[in-house]
Amino acid sequence: MSSDAQILQTLRTAGSNGVSGAELSQKLGISRAAVWARIEDLRKLGYEIEASPHAGYRLLSAPDTLHADDLSWRLSKGRKIGRDIRVFEQTSSTNDAIEKLARDGVKEGAVVFAEAQTRGRGRLGRKWISPARKGLWFSVLLRPELPPHAATQLTVASAIAVRNAIEEQTGLKTEIKWPNDILVSGKKVAGILTELSAELDRIKYVLVGIGVDVNLSATDFPAELRTQASSLKIELGKPVARTELAAAILRELDREYCRVLAGDFAAVASDWEQHCATLGQRLVIHLGDRRVCGRAESLGEDGALLLRTEHGHLERIVGGDVMLEK
Amino acid sequence: MSSDAQILQTLRTAGSNGVSGAELSQKLGISRAAVWARIEDLRKLGYEIEASPHAGYRLLSAPDTLHADDLSWRLSKGRKIGRDIRVFEQTSSTNDAIEKLARDGVKEGAVVFAEAQTRGRGRLGRKWISPARKGLWFSVLLRPELPPHAATQLTVASAIAVRNAIEEQTGLKTEIKWPNDILVSGKKVAGILTELSAELDRIKYVLVGIGVDVNLSATDFPAELRTQASSLKIELGKPVARTELAAAILRELDREYCRVLAGDFAAVASDWEQHCATLGQRLVIHLGDRRVCGRAESLGEDGALLLRTEHGHLERIVGGDVMLEK
Repeated sequence: MSSDAQILQTLRTAGSNGVSGAELSQKLGISRAAVWARIEDLRKLGYEIEASPHAGYRLLSAPDTLHADDLSWRLSKGRKIGRDIRVFEQTSSTNDAIEKLARDGVKEGAVVFAEAQTRGRGRLGRKWISPARKGLWFSVLLRPELPPHAATQLTVASAIAVRNAIEEQTGLKTEIKWPNDILVSGKKVAGILTELSAELDRIKYVLVGIGVDVNLSATDFPAELRTQASSLKIELGKPVARTELAAAILRELDREYCRVLAGDFAAVASDWEQHCATLGQRLVIHLGDRRVCGRAESLGEDGALLLRTEHGHLERIVGGDVMLEK
Repeated sequence: MSSDAQILQTLRTAGSNGVSGAELSQKLGISRAAVWARIEDLRKLGYEIEASPHAGYRLLSAPDTLHADDLSWRLSKGRKIGRDIRVFEQTSSTNDAIEKLARDGVKEGAVVFAEAQTRGRGRLGRKWISPARKGLWFSVLLRPELPPHAATQLTVASAIAVRNAIEEQTGLKTEIKWPNDILVSGKKVAGILTELSAELDRIKYVLVGIGVDVNLSATDFPAELRTQASSLKIELGKPVARTELAAAILRELDREYCRVLAGDFAAVASDWEQHCATLGQRLVIHLGDRRVCGRAESLGEDGALLLRTEHGHLERIVGGDVMLEK
């Protein structure tokens, strides 16, 4: 753990009692002057830290910025996901940023957050609005020993993880729209973009890009999206702490990913089906030029949506643009 | 067409008659001094060009090096594959080099050749021996509007294209070992490594890496490979012109790729099946830790190998390490 993370952890544990400079100095094995310098740096990052001769240092408030060390200490040791966390102030897209790491041979479980994305993307090449510090825009690098067609399982696992974490942190009732949208009151508050690099029979790496509209206001969305998209803040009526939510999502992702690797996708799929707004619905799905209509019947063992078409066939859907039939 | 390509084309057409400097100057719209300078550059590349006061310039011999312009003029206009050809003296792997182009948004059909690869790779992360000027080591960038699982079709199409071109240029009887090896007399002379970048339901790009052991000697192969691998030169008993073979492969690739895009994979598969050494054989296939035995029955509509297992099931194989049962 870095000095910053140790200081923050110690201050948080001490709470209103505070910690003396001498204690911090001893605990971290650095001089009191060095402790002071670290505290000054944390203040510059927006941490409000009081220093008094009696109580020592006290953490009054933490800024709404993402801090890699701060996120790290909130996660359990031995985890796969989040063992390497990097926070960028701005990037074109976190999937682009993590792909660079993937190509450089970085291990799986690395996570890249960006406070803002200049060219955030959603599925089907669509733009993803990513204003600074208002959402969680991040990507996770995975290197599962799975064949390429099993990548859909990771999208399903990610969707259930994001859903669980949002419900845990906000109490909002969330649903999943197949394959990768998280809905609150029928409006999209989060999405997942899975990209993969593979040989024909083996995944080289998978990038799971996650976008959560945390504290966006209605005016942050383009007018044409406001009927379909929302944010946790809008739905809850108050802002949501991004760091806590980010840590909760990473914990849930780790849990669900380990279930997939252990061959227990059936359990993931079962959770998913419980929370899925798509199953049982009549859908229109656009697959490139093709249009398929039918009733969403169940989830295939590889995460595909099994659609009972108008003609009575069971069709396996792995993507496309999914809409409710009107 | 570049000046170099125009000069070479004109010299080739003229043959032993030769072409005067004045003619070349007029044809290319450049000064006679500039023609001379281009000729000098071509000589440095190894083209043997005679200049005489009577006959003008005559091309006596072309070097065994790959020249992008020279390759280009051998291909038909309006082709998809080869409309952008680049030749590197050396690269780590041509799949790496073309992936950079892919990420930079270069159009499909771009081809990267390297005279030598320092880290050429085959399937399953294996090393591919690529000594300078002894083979054809190249990669083709494709951007088909196909779902990821259809990528196997491109490997099958590439295999039949390479096979056809080798047979056309050398007269050697070639066979295909599923999915991507080209055999002469039961020994591997060429291989294909297909890599893809995709979202769940759409290919972003496919890299088709092709390695042909053209003029390697037995001593160019590591001792442990000599029973399984060979070169066209070894099998034919004389060297093969690499430029002509490269152009033939690109022409065939273009033809087969257009058939796949036109939805006519059935025709490609039918050609493939005629030349396949794998069909009808009893195989042992290692898929990671799993081992499947059975008889290769046919090719699936997506290019997968359909294997009738020991237990009578028909199993769809898309990769793995394929060996004849002993």
